Amino acid sequence: MTDPIAEIISHARREQRVYLLEHECKAILRHIGVPTTSCLVAKSEEEAVSLSQAIGYPVVLKILSPEVIHKSDAGGVKLNLGREEVRAAYHELVAKFTNHNVVGVSVQEMARPGLEVIVGATRDATFGPVLMFGLGGVFVEVLKDVSFRVIPVTEDDTQEMMEEIRGYELLHGYRANQQISKSANQRIGESANGRVGESESRGRSADMASLRDILLKVSELVMAYPAIKEVDLNPVLAYPEGSLVVDARLVLSESEGMILDRPDRFPKPVRSGDLSAVFEPQSVAVVGASTTPGKAGSNILDNLLRLGYEGQVYPVNPKAEVILGVKAYPAVDQIPRPVETAIIATPARVVAEVMRDCARKGVKAAIIISSGFAEESEEGRQLEDEVMVIARQADIRVVGPNTTGILNGETRFTSSFLPIKKLPSGNVAFIAQTGLFLGVLFEHIISAEHFGISKVAGLGNKADVDDADILEYLAEDAQTKVVAMYIEGLGDGRRFLRAARKIAREKPIVVLKSGTTEAGAEAALSHTASLAGKAEVFEAACQQAGLLRVHSFEEMLDVVKAFSFFAPPHSRRGKFCPLSSGNRVAIVHYTGAGCVIAADACQKEGIELAELALATVEAIREITPPWHRIRNPVDLWPAIEQVWVETAYGVAIEALLRDAGVDALVISLFAMPGWETYIPDFGLLRASGKPVLFCVEGNGEMVREATARIEGQGFPVYSQVNRAIFALSHLSKYTRLRAI
Amino acid sequence: MTDPIAEIISHARREQRVYLLEHECKAILRHIGVPTTSCLVAKSEEEAVSLSQAIGYPVVLKILSPEVIHKSDAGGVKLNLGREEVRAAYHELVAKFTNHNVVGVSVQEMARPGLEVIVGATRDATFGPVLMFGLGGVFVEVLKDVSFRVIPVTEDDTQEMMEEIRGYELLHGYRANQQISKSANQRIGESANGRVGESESRGRSADMASLRDILLKVSELVMAYPAIKEVDLNPVLAYPEGSLVVDARLVLSESEGMILDRPDRFPKPVRSGDLSAVFEPQSVAVVGASTTPGKAGSNILDNLLRLGYEGQVYPVNPKAEVILGVKAYPAVDQIPRPVETAIIATPARVVAEVMRDCARKGVKAAIIISSGFAEESEEGRQLEDEVMVIARQADIRVVGPNTTGILNGETRFTSSFLPIKKLPSGNVAFIAQTGLFLGVLFEHIISAEHFGISKVAGLGNKADVDDADILEYLAEDAQTKVVAMYIEGLGDGRRFLRAARKIAREKPIVVLKSGTTEAGAEAALSHTASLAGKAEVFEAACQQAGLLRVHSFEEMLDVVKAFSFFAPPHSRRGKFCPLSSGNRVAIVHYTGAGCVIAADACQKEGIELAELALATVEAIREITPPWHRIRNPVDLWPAIEQVWVETAYGVAIEALLRDAGVDALVISLFAMPGWETYIPDFGLLRASGKPVLFCVEGNGEMVREATARIEGQGFPVYSQVNRAIFALSHLSKYTRLRAI
Repeated sequence: MTDPIAEIISHARREQRVYLLEHECKAILRHIGVPTTSCLVAKSEEEAVSLSQAIGYPVVLKILSPEVIHKSDAGGVKLNLGREEVRAAYHELVAKFTNHNVVGVSVQEMARPGLEVIVGATRDATFGPVLMFGLGGVFVEVLKDVSFRVIPVTEDDTQEMMEEIRGYELLHGYRANQQISKSANQRIGESANGRVGESESRGRSADMASLRDILLKVSELVMAYPAIKEVDLNPVLAYPEGSLVVDARLVLSESEGMILDRPDRFPKPVRSGDLSAVFEPQSVAVVGASTTPGKAGSNILDNLLRLGYEGQVYPVNPKAEVILGVKAYPAVDQIPRPVETAIIATPARVVAEVMRDCARKGVKAAIIISSGFAEESEEGRQLEDEVMVIARQADIRVVGPNTTGILNGETRFTSSFLPIKKLPSGNVAFIAQTGLFLGVLFEHIISAEHFGISKVAGLGNKADVDDADILEYLAEDAQTKVVAMYIEGLGDGRRFLRAARKIAREKPIVVLKSGTTEAGAEAALSHTASLAGKAEVFEAACQQAGLLRVHSFEEMLDVVKAFSFFAPPHSRRGKFCPLSSGNRVAIVHYTGAGCVIAADACQKEGIELAELALATVEAIREITPPWHRIRNPVDLWPAIEQVWVETAYGVAIEALLRDAGVDALVISLFAMPGWETYIPDFGLLRASGKPVLFCVEGNGEMVREATARIEGQGFPVYSQVNRAIFALSHLSKYTRLRAI
Repeated sequence: MTDPIAEIISHARREQRVYLLEHECKAILRHIGVPTTSCLVAKSEEEAVSLSQAIGYPVVLKILSPEVIHKSDAGGVKLNLGREEVRAAYHELVAKFTNHNVVGVSVQEMARPGLEVIVGATRDATFGPVLMFGLGGVFVEVLKDVSFRVIPVTEDDTQEMMEEIRGYELLHGYRANQQISKSANQRIGESANGRVGESESRGRSADMASLRDILLKVSELVMAYPAIKEVDLNPVLAYPEGSLVVDARLVLSESEGMILDRPDRFPKPVRSGDLSAVFEPQSVAVVGASTTPGKAGSNILDNLLRLGYEGQVYPVNPKAEVILGVKAYPAVDQIPRPVETAIIATPARVVAEVMRDCARKGVKAAIIISSGFAEESEEGRQLEDEVMVIARQADIRVVGPNTTGILNGETRFTSSFLPIKKLPSGNVAFIAQTGLFLGVLFEHIISAEHFGISKVAGLGNKADVDDADILEYLAEDAQTKVVAMYIEGLGDGRRFLRAARKIAREKPIVVLKSGTTEAGAEAALSHTASLAGKAEVFEAACQQAGLLRVHSFEEMLDVVKAFSFFAPPHSRRGKFCPLSSGNRVAIVHYTGAGCVIAADACQKEGIELAELALATVEAIREITPPWHRIRNPVDLWPAIEQVWVETAYGVAIEALLRDAGVDALVISLFAMPGWETYIPDFGLLRASGKPVLFCVEGNGEMVREATARIEGQGFPVYSQVNRAIFALSHLSKYTRLRAI
């Protein structure tokens, strides 16, 4: 049996075309069950007339030529032709393109007016094939009202894609102002696609099922035919009773096939998820251990000895007998006892030799701190490859090179070459390409934050172990309840997406991605490719995987903190965040201004303000002056003036926590000289089972003290009420994601 | 001479219509010189035919009836009629609306296709008449691609309105992807307004001058006729050779005139700009001074005595002889020496009596701390009015009631009832409706920030002195170089706008507005009114006045800090910020990750990355390994590893400051235990004349120390590089605003 799609592609290839002709595109679409307007090829005037008659007037005539890509621009389109006009139009077209290689003239019916949308596909360098949906026509590239998903997509994905565009209201038939918009819609309806007359679809919803179907079928098409590089179905006319592709453009890849999943530089070993030798070695050799204090090879050893790592530590240095009081060996394979893992901090040029020693010794993992590899030069890349060949043959997992490497908050194992003074063990894991997390940000966390760390992975050049490997490991790691990632680039986006999707339902993953401001391909041949910028595709991938996206380190820490504190220490998997009952927050603030800002923040972040129960209002009524209107956010200042701080906060908090309509509570406190900063009854907060977030403002030193005290009790504190609500919105978003 | 516009309005009023009929709208537009399609009224079949002939086929027929507002929805529009179709269409329309009060049938020419835009006007409760521009058609309310300005507008305003919409590229004829979009444009061109055929305007720019002209004329119309409440010209067809209004809707106000400027509750005194008695009194009575420590009346007196206020202070309390060592008086008018200003902190019920005493004494200003007025109840409002009548008769300016009031960093005068421990004098003025700025935020600033304060004004109920008054005062205040405002609501938006516009060219005004998330009028009769939400109009007003908008207190402090430090202590007016030469920044960061984040932030905030001169690259080349690619942002880590911190930063900073292509510098430092935090040569920085902003990250305590040290030298420090760039973008934006 022949495959008509493959045949069309082969035919174009033979003619050395990367564009398919319109009738070819439509033939492919019809073959996969996507409805299109007709596109019959006439090779003579008589044929044009008879085809027109068969189709029914009015008709559209378009020139068909591999040399005329942009038919409309070239004057190769004749619209809305009546019976008498077909012959003249045919002649005119043929005459106009007499110097071109003309295949024929296509005859099509005039589609009746409908809402113009676009369905497209392109191939992203990181994530492979992606699907696009949006409003069609000239607005596509200017208004950029489009959404993306990595292919393949589910039916839910296609529904979300439609809901994500600003123009969803148009599809859905919803009207903010029914009377006005109906008339506006009519005006567009009249004119769309060049047809005059009454629109039958005004104010009615488009047939979403048919659009979902087109999206799914284009997704399947692009998966099945790697030769198809870009797809633009634009416009697709959306009617209440179905959808119809009016024009289509398919672009083939220059070469014979497209890469779907990027191959690893070095194929992963079979049990790639087992990184126990990376994170939990029983014994470790520090190769390049130094006797000079302050040098990397000294700091690594010092950290291991001082922080309480309980495994065996073997310094390796051919020029020393003893380092920091520990017997040193000249080479890894001369250590008389088993060595599970090697930390390599030698100059780059000897790393290959060290790796051979490791192979001989049966080492299972190597963390290569040394720089001077692929990040520096082509020679470095060759050196890295040489090292990796040795490692792969010996089944050694490699972290790095060019990294600070690994930290395990529980076993106190670390390869960090920066001196670590203290190591607060906790439930947050960090993954980062750069050593940043084991450096300056780590120092910030241990000196200024009050949550603890389970694992850190600095991945450096990712010659072997990459983000997806770490995610797979962390999925099974009992200590880790929250994952924070800083990503610059991803190698294999699709593998990352699969791994992230798996873990994200069990543990929230908070992602900061930099380098996302680059625009889409400038010289793209399709709307879809030109709109599919890195940022848009990454955002879509996050959405699909259920990742929580943040846009600065401060936002990352704000969100991570909330998850860290609200993960019960011995929670069952899948019972993570206490915000499962809903999205309704109550806010107590010591000023009216704070209340207004908090309400703004709720609206911005999609958090609902709880409607207070009568009993709640009555309880607060007891402590606040009669003129004061009690509503949510609760402005506590009048109550503070009347009954002072303790009673005011105490009564309000108790009443709000008891209110069944309140799912979460945000409490804003002030820390002022001459006032005792209010500290709540933490037992009461915990007993409520509701997430309670704090905000403390005022005197710098006092704010830090209150923050330490409250976070010491397991409740996150923010510097501004809007930041507390931002964090809360991510708790809430994660709960919703998991509920799906 | 009669005014045809007034006549049309009167006619509609007599018929008790708030909608004008289409031919009335178009008559008004034509009268003011705005081109529209014809709209001739036919009252018979014959008339319809002869009018059609006069106009030329094809034509449009529309029903004209005060009862058919939404003609298209009602089936009252017949488009694209040929010679043979007019009679039938006329009959059909008349038959369909036989039960309606039909004025006639309007006959119009079919406009040829063009880009559909909307021009609208509405009246905002705060800012009065506002103008709207955007893409027209059904996209108006869904895509909300519109911009606003407060009327009256300048020609520059109208140009900015066009440039602000996302669809500006369509107007401007610009194409991101010329080949594709031309064809898309053609497709729209074909269909717009129901006309089939070739578009002559594809890819060409719309005639901007004609659009500007329509905007200006609508602006004038709405100013001249307060009875016109809303205007929707939609669509206006924009062609390369002009613009044409195809459909128009004008809505009249329910009552006979609209308020343009809101009247003050109490008319301002003539010399309203003179607030010297409010901010710089020579003598002050503290009415309600208390002998009980910690009470408001005690704190106020204590602050005045302790902070170094050098004027005369007279406690007023009928029950005390001496308070805090100062002789007290039973009433203001019993003080034997002159009293310029009174701070009133008594219970609300006696404030009127106190004000009478003040009037007798010849007091010039009263700051009413007391609450219990309009903010609480209707009785409170009456009490407030009573107090104001007394004050106005005696020409006493009133701040408050219900406020913490005033602080003058220079003279140490303050009415704050919260104890103030220290008072760093400086160049930043704060204006806020609530007492927040003299409370918790003030405490934050004096305890954790390193800039100083010139003036604070808490305005409370704004019974008299309001935001505009304060702005007028600060315009002339030599100490104030930067103004920060927290606004919840404004009374008279237009007066505020005038005052802000005047001062904003001399001194940057940083504005945080809360309560902006409310949507536009839900039941609006026009697109314009339904899109003109509070936030949109406020944003437009800020743009017009040259205000710098921020969205949280943290953003406000970040921006204010930069302006405060970069305002030279004795700068000439108009020579404010050293960023006048351009927008090109160089960034030095200690990690590659920071460089990527910084580059992202530059793109997001509209800051240009400087292209480094060859000499700069060569200088940095000396200190960094050969494999390291030197570009901006400069990743300094390889250099730090090679020549250590001092030399690496020193060389890079010197080279970048010397580079004539670098207008500003952002330096990211790390503060880590075991490392000396790098502190630059401040003399060198100052000598460069370029703004230099810092970012310090790492150990919490060390970051605070480095921040204090660097800010002590007059350079702002931020917690994250993206925040430094955010602040820099506001310096740059202000420079641009002032350059206009």
